[in-house]
Amino acid sequence: MNCVSICLRSSVLYLFLASACALSVDEMDGAESGLFKDTLRDEAITRLNELGKVSDANGYLERTFMSKASLRAGNLIRDWMEDAGLATWMDCMGNVHGRVEGLNSSAEALLIGSHLDTVVDAGIFDGSLGIIAAVSALKVLKSNGLLSKLKRPVEVIAFSDEEGVRFQSTFLGSAAIAGILPVSALQTSDKSGVTVEDALKENSIDIAEESLSQLKYDRHSVWGYVELHIEQGPVLEYVGFPIGVVKGIAGQTRLKVTVKGSQGHAGTVPMSLRQDPMAAAAELIVLLESLCKDPKAFLSYDGQCADSIVESLSSSLVCTVGEISTWPSASNVIPGQVTFTVDLRAIDDIGRQAVLYELSNRMYQICERRSVHCHIEHKHNANAVMCDPELSSQLKVAANASLKRMTGEIQDEVPVLMSGAGHDAMAMSHLTKVGMLFIRCRGGVSHSPTEHVSDDDVWAAGLTVLSFLETHM
Amino acid sequence: MNCVSICLRSSVLYLFLASACALSVDEMDGAESGLFKDTLRDEAITRLNELGKVSDANGYLERTFMSKASLRAGNLIRDWMEDAGLATWMDCMGNVHGRVEGLNSSAEALLIGSHLDTVVDAGIFDGSLGIIAAVSALKVLKSNGLLSKLKRPVEVIAFSDEEGVRFQSTFLGSAAIAGILPVSALQTSDKSGVTVEDALKENSIDIAEESLSQLKYDRHSVWGYVELHIEQGPVLEYVGFPIGVVKGIAGQTRLKVTVKGSQGHAGTVPMSLRQDPMAAAAELIVLLESLCKDPKAFLSYDGQCADSIVESLSSSLVCTVGEISTWPSASNVIPGQVTFTVDLRAIDDIGRQAVLYELSNRMYQICERRSVHCHIEHKHNANAVMCDPELSSQLKVAANASLKRMTGEIQDEVPVLMSGAGHDAMAMSHLTKVGMLFIRCRGGVSHSPTEHVSDDDVWAAGLTVLSFLETHM
Repeated sequence: MNCVSICLRSSVLYLFLASACALSVDEMDGAESGLFKDTLRDEAITRLNELGKVSDANGYLERTFMSKASLRAGNLIRDWMEDAGLATWMDCMGNVHGRVEGLNSSAEALLIGSHLDTVVDAGIFDGSLGIIAAVSALKVLKSNGLLSKLKRPVEVIAFSDEEGVRFQSTFLGSAAIAGILPVSALQTSDKSGVTVEDALKENSIDIAEESLSQLKYDRHSVWGYVELHIEQGPVLEYVGFPIGVVKGIAGQTRLKVTVKGSQGHAGTVPMSLRQDPMAAAAELIVLLESLCKDPKAFLSYDGQCADSIVESLSSSLVCTVGEISTWPSASNVIPGQVTFTVDLRAIDDIGRQAVLYELSNRMYQICERRSVHCHIEHKHNANAVMCDPELSSQLKVAANASLKRMTGEIQDEVPVLMSGAGHDAMAMSHLTKVGMLFIRCRGGVSHSPTEHVSDDDVWAAGLTVLSFLETHM
Repeated sequence: MNCVSICLRSSVLYLFLASACALSVDEMDGAESGLFKDTLRDEAITRLNELGKVSDANGYLERTFMSKASLRAGNLIRDWMEDAGLATWMDCMGNVHGRVEGLNSSAEALLIGSHLDTVVDAGIFDGSLGIIAAVSALKVLKSNGLLSKLKRPVEVIAFSDEEGVRFQSTFLGSAAIAGILPVSALQTSDKSGVTVEDALKENSIDIAEESLSQLKYDRHSVWGYVELHIEQGPVLEYVGFPIGVVKGIAGQTRLKVTVKGSQGHAGTVPMSLRQDPMAAAAELIVLLESLCKDPKAFLSYDGQCADSIVESLSSSLVCTVGEISTWPSASNVIPGQVTFTVDLRAIDDIGRQAVLYELSNRMYQICERRSVHCHIEHKHNANAVMCDPELSSQLKVAANASLKRMTGEIQDEVPVLMSGAGHDAMAMSHLTKVGMLFIRCRGGVSHSPTEHVSDDDVWAAGLTVLSFLETHM
């Protein structure tokens, strides 16, 4: 693939919206009417804290697929769902459902979901906030006698496995509902040798090929899927907005780069005679960063690439070297080999492929010039998932409306951003159109007990889901 | 320290001599007379192979301080020393000595040494070649009735510990003789908790502060120290010479560089908001390599530094990053911290300090620009040891003479090079003037069973020691 052919294809322009929403607590406190602070903020926070204590571990939060804590969490969520007027059940992949039929039980259903499992030593918002915000919003509708006015069924789903901690899987729950979970996944083992099937059996759930296929939702019965999740990144904090609309979930490539040189004594090989894979790897990593910071400079060199793909890359491309090792790893030995990982994500798949092509070419050139041998292995490739533009537009309207309800007015529209992390919406996109909302989290930190969402941002989350539901009446 | 003050100090000009000696086996085979091929080549090779089989391990070579194999090796060496007409003994640090008094037993003695210990999975030449070449040369003198004609005592010493494998020490043997081994070293423990003192006691050697201090040679009784060793680097092979004279042993600094940034999700933190310690570390390593490849460009920027120090650095400076690690070391996490080692060596101590000063300054500047925190820790500093110019000159004459004896003529003088690796000569330099010879080894490889010195280069080694001894008659 060359730059010209890339430019001939269409792409989606994506931009971080860098303007700020002038939201302040004082302003919010001044506008109580129709804000349901007790339910959407105070009770939601109490529930987040309560759910955050349901853990398989002592002293930190951990809930994995079908663990005891996950089952306790599922029951707690069912209680809250029932409190909101929903009919509840747990399916045979451990997903917890709460559904209200509304005016027309045969209409296409709106699904709203997030996950109830956690990483090890987790924060209390990741996954849980999306579930609780939806349940709280439905509770407000119930309190106001509006549940029955919904023009379509609304179903909240708390997925059983998004983090994949126990089975090194992801999306066991949502993939089953989307119908993309292979039967072979049931035989995946955890560290103790317990399979997914065993884990379900321990909880009196017999699952086989047939029951797994029955889990799949009929796409004609579903209107769309909405997920609200903490951002897990610093953009909303940086631009000063509590909420953002997700344009799409980035595609991802994971590389393993191996550089082989000439091992030698650190004291006896002159610089001019070295084939040092560590110095080469350092140059490759510097190149990677330069390219990903400014893809335009690398992809537009023939003057024909200043198009939407390069613009999209300029704002969405992220590249990370998270692991590196040398062999033999002694301070007084020039390494014989250096290996490092590259995690490369972008919202535009063609753009990501163009970057990979350019990166690989330049990496091999550097290695050739240095007389070291490079091998670039593709360990993982996943295409981007684009959120449905119309659904996203509705979510944006709802987010703007809720912020306006809280602040009286907003100066700018909520930002649109990409998701660099994977979410259940990726699996659900195989079933139906998807839309996502991100909620600001402090410092962009997640997967940590220091993960934090402010009380007012929890409120904004619930109010946005409520505003969105109101458009379905 | 600034560049100007560095330039005011004197330094030693050091150059790799890049011209080649046109030595060929055919030419050598054509000149048998006075070459003592049977002793200096064939028997020496047989002995190298025999000593290479004396190991504590099955299947590979390993001899550590006072191990059973080391004692067997010591006895074998004593047999060969006695065969060469030397009086032998083992001292109370396990060093094996062989001495001939010559014409005047009260004259200052010439010491010739190398080490009998090895690394784990060692080659057969490192250490052993220096001992065997010296013993073989003395055997030739004995055969020719010339031992008694030596104008001064000659003593060959096989040192008990240079590699420091067992006690993470180096130079236990030579440091004791040079009088620089602290008594505290006797209490150093190996992995099993056995101390140096215990290891000696197991072999019926009682050592205490007094006996340790008695090991120290009176500097007035010593004329100088000579060591012949494999190069352990590729320079002699590169320039096409079997033998080289060592100008000095490089000074060394070991750094531990810690870069702290902002840990984050590989997918959610835009490039522009990152404080990535891995990308920073890569830039630092690229800087390190650039500076060490071309110190002139970095140290001469004020136009006042184009002097001998910079010239010396240009040819002798070597820098290595042998170890690197990230935290938390996951492919999908921007590291929070990266740590790497720097091994920096140069023949000129002032130059090395100038490089460290410049390197640190520039590293801190890069870290500041990237908003990451860098800490540069000095883990080890050792000054260079310069070989005695007169002794080196005599060794050069001997090396040239031996090559001329083998080839009939040589077009260029043997090269002068630095030693980037440490040797017993470093310890012995505290006692007396030192000189060193390097022998070419294939590919510069050492500390490996693939370590190799050609038969004819073993011959050249013995003949050079013989030529040198002949100047002491």
